[in-house]
Amino acid sequence: MYWQQELETMPVEALRALQLSRLQTSVRRAITSPYYQQLYQQRGITADDLNTLDDVKRLPFTTKQDLRNGYPYGFLTVPKTEVVRLHSSSGTTGQATVIFHTAADIRDWANLMARCMYMTGARNSDVFQNMSGYGMFTGGLGFHYGAELLGMLTVPAGSGNSKRQIHYMKDFQTSVIHIIPSYALHMISVFEEEKVNPRDLHLRIAFLGAEPHTEHTRKRVEDAFGVKAFNSYGLSEMYGPGVAFECPEQNGLHIWEDSYFVEVINPDTLEPVADGEIGELVLTTLTREAMPLIRYRTRDLTSISSEPCPCGRTHRRIARIKGRSDDMLIIKGVNVFPMQVEAVLMSIPEVGTNYQIELETVENIDVMTVNVEVRDDFFLGDVKGLTALQQKITNALKSEVLFTPKVKLVEPDSIPEAQGKAVRVIDRRVAH
Amino acid sequence: MYWQQELETMPVEALRALQLSRLQTSVRRAITSPYYQQLYQQRGITADDLNTLDDVKRLPFTTKQDLRNGYPYGFLTVPKTEVVRLHSSSGTTGQATVIFHTAADIRDWANLMARCMYMTGARNSDVFQNMSGYGMFTGGLGFHYGAELLGMLTVPAGSGNSKRQIHYMKDFQTSVIHIIPSYALHMISVFEEEKVNPRDLHLRIAFLGAEPHTEHTRKRVEDAFGVKAFNSYGLSEMYGPGVAFECPEQNGLHIWEDSYFVEVINPDTLEPVADGEIGELVLTTLTREAMPLIRYRTRDLTSISSEPCPCGRTHRRIARIKGRSDDMLIIKGVNVFPMQVEAVLMSIPEVGTNYQIELETVENIDVMTVNVEVRDDFFLGDVKGLTALQQKITNALKSEVLFTPKVKLVEPDSIPEAQGKAVRVIDRRVAH
Ligand SMILES: [Zn+2]
Ligand SMILES: [Zn+2]
Repeated sequence: MYWQQELETMPVEALRALQLSRLQTSVRRAITSPYYQQLYQQRGITADDLNTLDDVKRLPFTTKQDLRNGYPYGFLTVPKTEVVRLHSSSGTTGQATVIFHTAADIRDWANLMARCMYMTGARNSDVFQNMSGYGMFTGGLGFHYGAELLGMLTVPAGSGNSKRQIHYMKDFQTSVIHIIPSYALHMISVFEEEKVNPRDLHLRIAFLGAEPHTEHTRKRVEDAFGVKAFNSYGLSEMYGPGVAFECPEQNGLHIWEDSYFVEVINPDTLEPVADGEIGELVLTTLTREAMPLIRYRTRDLTSISSEPCPCGRTHRRIARIKGRSDDMLIIKGVNVFPMQVEAVLMSIPEVGTNYQIELETVENIDVMTVNVEVRDDFFLGDVKGLTALQQKITNALKSEVLFTPKVKLVEPDSIPEAQGKAVRVIDRRVAH
Repeated sequence: MYWQQELETMPVEALRALQLSRLQTSVRRAITSPYYQQLYQQRGITADDLNTLDDVKRLPFTTKQDLRNGYPYGFLTVPKTEVVRLHSSSGTTGQATVIFHTAADIRDWANLMARCMYMTGARNSDVFQNMSGYGMFTGGLGFHYGAELLGMLTVPAGSGNSKRQIHYMKDFQTSVIHIIPSYALHMISVFEEEKVNPRDLHLRIAFLGAEPHTEHTRKRVEDAFGVKAFNSYGLSEMYGPGVAFECPEQNGLHIWEDSYFVEVINPDTLEPVADGEIGELVLTTLTREAMPLIRYRTRDLTSISSEPCPCGRTHRRIARIKGRSDDMLIIKGVNVFPMQVEAVLMSIPEVGTNYQIELETVENIDVMTVNVEVRDDFFLGDVKGLTALQQKITNALKSEVLFTPKVKLVEPDSIPEAQGKAVRVIDRRVAH
């Protein structure tokens, strides 16, 4: 049932006590890095100021920009001889960020990943196909190390080459996959082309990571592949995947509070929001050695629930990510998240597997065009049907975003496939 | 000096005794796989037949075709629950091969890789940039696990994106790289374009793997990058890299005889060849759990030396790989290895970083054209100079291959870059 029963089902009070003691250690360690040393000295903060978890509010936030300013070694707390791995964001020098790991960090990360996957029912009898890029992208090596630790037979397939992926699934009787949601949707049409029904294979579990996605996307993947699909949440600033993961209840993602101290704040006021209210997730590493981060603003929008979970785990649950605070588009003065558009589209059965939002300025006015791939069978239908579908989508989007977008229906597979994360928004607007 | 002093400097007699005992265990284990069980039963062979190392000759060879026939599970000796990784060759079903590993195998492989790299002088104070594809390609994960075990700061850069590679080298003060030789040659021109002198960076060691290459190629890389370059040998059928590696003497590659039982045979008569004579390398795994291979014909051509090495390691050394028995081209009735052509080209200073051999049939006769990139500075010289260079290359090749090839001089960077291993031969000949 549990990978680490004692930690996963720890009574909440004991968990909070563990967090406090780890938080103190983590802050004490962070203060040995050049960045935090200077900052905390300036503000007159020491680890002794932390007597309760509530005292965390005295500590300043850490932002992506702080990481950029500290690039490359500003946040490092150990000699370089103790560092065995780094993951760096792309981006030209000056805008890049980098995260360092000791050997213990790598083991800790692998253990969290194994815990996540074991929670969903993955076992050492499973064959795990990791359909995710390796190298700098933390999704690849993160799932890989966790799967090997769990003892699954790991197929390091990497991303792309869909036909070969299908070969591997058949030949090795793959039962568990890790896949980016947009690639999973794309694979559905590849299976159709190859005349292979994924439900006839041995697949039973899919981990969907690296991109926020909707409940409808999950359902589509589950129906097409014949699997249970679990939502994976993480970010490279906190190792990578393994921060929060769905349990078999599929009702929110348990966020591992023995490894992370969790806050949800209003991104404008920076004050905590109540349980169930949407805000920005703020995380503090509790176990990381090489590079502790204190009150890191993830920019991911979610809400948190303290409701007990039937699975028995006591770690709180975050909701599906609603978007990123900096993904928010302001269109005609209205706040729109690409995820809202996706949620609407994926709820309409005639809609295919890909879409794209284009923004332009026409006579000083924002124009949003949504290009929507239509399923093969519907696309070959009569023009009347297509016009009705276009109207249906337009109305559904309008009632979500409160203005009328342009909707263009396009053929299946006509929107270019992205390498890696899908490009959902093309913004060609002129700055006002 | 040594990663595992006792094993690396073990007196030869003790090493042979260790080999015999491990060989017996390995054969005993192999016989539990469906493939070897059936084969050895048919031939009436048991592990008890192995009383001396010489008795290995009673055992049949294993070939690539045998691996294909046994695909996927024919060579597996453990329950699937104990397997944590596979590496599969591409190739459509039926022609594919697959190698399985237990958790102990992965640790064993990582240890061999750490031993190789430590031998060259790499230490936990080094920053290691792994410029090699990850995923199914064993070079990526093989070096990655070894580097982390050694404790180097591992930069999982992956292959390609040369400009970003240079950024990483600068930002993280990379001191050790793993790179495919053809990509190293290509990088020389990227450095020139970017106006970065690699000698001004912190590079000190390069591991050249995955492709056979010549001494001249090594020298070019050493001169351009300002590093010591070490030759890495391995094949996915034996984990991957980590089978044999150069020591600081750079005079042959120590082949790890505590992990592999080594033979060199005449590929036609299948009889052993003498020390120093070129033949096909045949390897038997001595420690692998999931998938022991007995007398595996690597198809790689080399010779072996029992001469003591000044570095103190007692494991014998193989020479630089001369080519593959199945890479051999028969042109106008003459045996030609692409490596011979490369050796000639790389010894001529005016020659650039890339070349390609094209074979055609013209009026029933084989025609070999060698397209040779010329260095920028020479290419811009006068026509007379180019004609003289063409003649010089033609003569040099003729004295190596014993017939007169066509030589075409081409501009730098005009031969398409390969993704992964370079495509050195294009054979358009009509079958006779
Ligand atoms: Zn739960
Ligand atoms: Zn030596």
